[in-house]
Amino acid sequence: MPLRLTLEYDGRGFRGWAAQPGQRTVEGAVREALGELYEGFEGLAVAGRTDAGVHALGQVVSAEVTGGPPTEKAAEALNAMLPDDVAVVSADAAPEGFHARFSARARSYRYRLYRRPLRSPFEDGRSWWYPKPIDLEALPAAAALLPGEHDFRAFTPAETRHKAFVRLIEAADWHERGAHLELEITADSFLRHMVRTLVGTMLEQSPEELERLLEGRPRSEAGTTAPPGGLYLVSVRY
Amino acid sequence: MPLRLTLEYDGRGFRGWAAQPGQRTVEGAVREALGELYEGFEGLAVAGRTDAGVHALGQVVSAEVTGGPPTEKAAEALNAMLPDDVAVVSADAAPEGFHARFSARARSYRYRLYRRPLRSPFEDGRSWWYPKPIDLEALPAAAALLPGEHDFRAFTPAETRHKAFVRLIEAADWHERGAHLELEITADSFLRHMVRTLVGTMLEQSPEELERLLEGRPRSEAGTTAPPGGLYLVSVRY
Repeated sequence: MPLRLTLEYDGRGFRGWAAQPGQRTVEGAVREALGELYEGFEGLAVAGRTDAGVHALGQVVSAEVTGGPPTEKAAEALNAMLPDDVAVVSADAAPEGFHARFSARARSYRYRLYRRPLRSPFEDGRSWWYPKPIDLEALPAAAALLPGEHDFRAFTPAETRHKAFVRLIEAADWHERGAHLELEITADSFLRHMVRTLVGTMLEQSPEELERLLEGRPRSEAGTTAPPGGLYLVSVRY
Repeated sequence: MPLRLTLEYDGRGFRGWAAQPGQRTVEGAVREALGELYEGFEGLAVAGRTDAGVHALGQVVSAEVTGGPPTEKAAEALNAMLPDDVAVVSADAAPEGFHARFSARARSYRYRLYRRPLRSPFEDGRSWWYPKPIDLEALPAAAALLPGEHDFRAFTPAETRHKAFVRLIEAADWHERGAHLELEITADSFLRHMVRTLVGTMLEQSPEELERLLEGRPRSEAGTTAPPGGLYLVSVRY
């Protein structure tokens, strides 16, 4: 039966999504729980391969499963087997042919800056503590340049397995929420480190400089890669 | 110079406030940072000796310090030395004779229940995941019984070092905040486990049963001690 799961995870304790020998990964934890609950599963796919320390509020995975509990019991049963820092928030029967990665039409990420002058233990690894002054007019002006198709090669490591660098941004906006300043960004898909490098660059360079970078400049001309703890995969659209 | 610090900490990684040999404690971390920053310090006192796993948003400590940086630099300097799960949020020169514990007039705690049907990794150790049904009329009715002087011996372990069991509650209210249900409670001081046992009892027993317990009944008649991760020391009044 094709199964679709929506996952939340706190990325601090994981070396990212992708299973790696000897490393604690989200994929490893999910495979272990699926293996315990079902007689068999195959074709595990994920919407967004998050890096070490990156969080998810709405990661989507799909797999073909056999011989387990009815779908309406799957979320609770999997949560009993998953570690405390990852949870299934919904489990549904997927339509035939559904693939968490290839069927996805758009991904939405959030990047959270924390602006209090002194750091907070409750924000450790969950946002980027950024007590330095921020130009609150430049950020929205920079975000407004993003929608549309651009060449984002400046925003991913120079050594890359990506072959295509053009991505279609649907929306990008900064929001102030209490002591947090949050970028919400939606695109068809993202290059590795793309959101984090966009954030670092928006904080360091002017909107005019950013505009030039969107024409396919080299990585060396863009800014810092913001730390992973501020990044959340919020949702995936199919 | 008499120094007063306000601290935040995420209690998950600590065996509570009080220093114990071979254990990671908040007091141990604070003593280490004070020892690094100042030539000397003595008379370290704390407003609320929180238990293992309990958090603080406004814990207050006092100490007599000599030979360190000016007070306005103390918070940032201490934060550079403290581990990531504890932080100074303000540092002031205390009035002569100020003692974080004995000068305190009232303490305010919050207890957080998390009511989503499926658990959340982001709430792990930071609230009590409570997916069971809750009587939303009984809780405020129970809280309304608390203000005033009562004998709280039912709400602290039977084996105790406390000698007096009467406490004066100033205020107690439940608030719904999204998926959280939170008790805010203020008293002159609290017995060990008192807030957590009040919460467990309010969820398990009727307001009428609670009222009887407030007359000094034995511990065995009260309810469960709610887990420590839902409890926050919010503020201390002087």
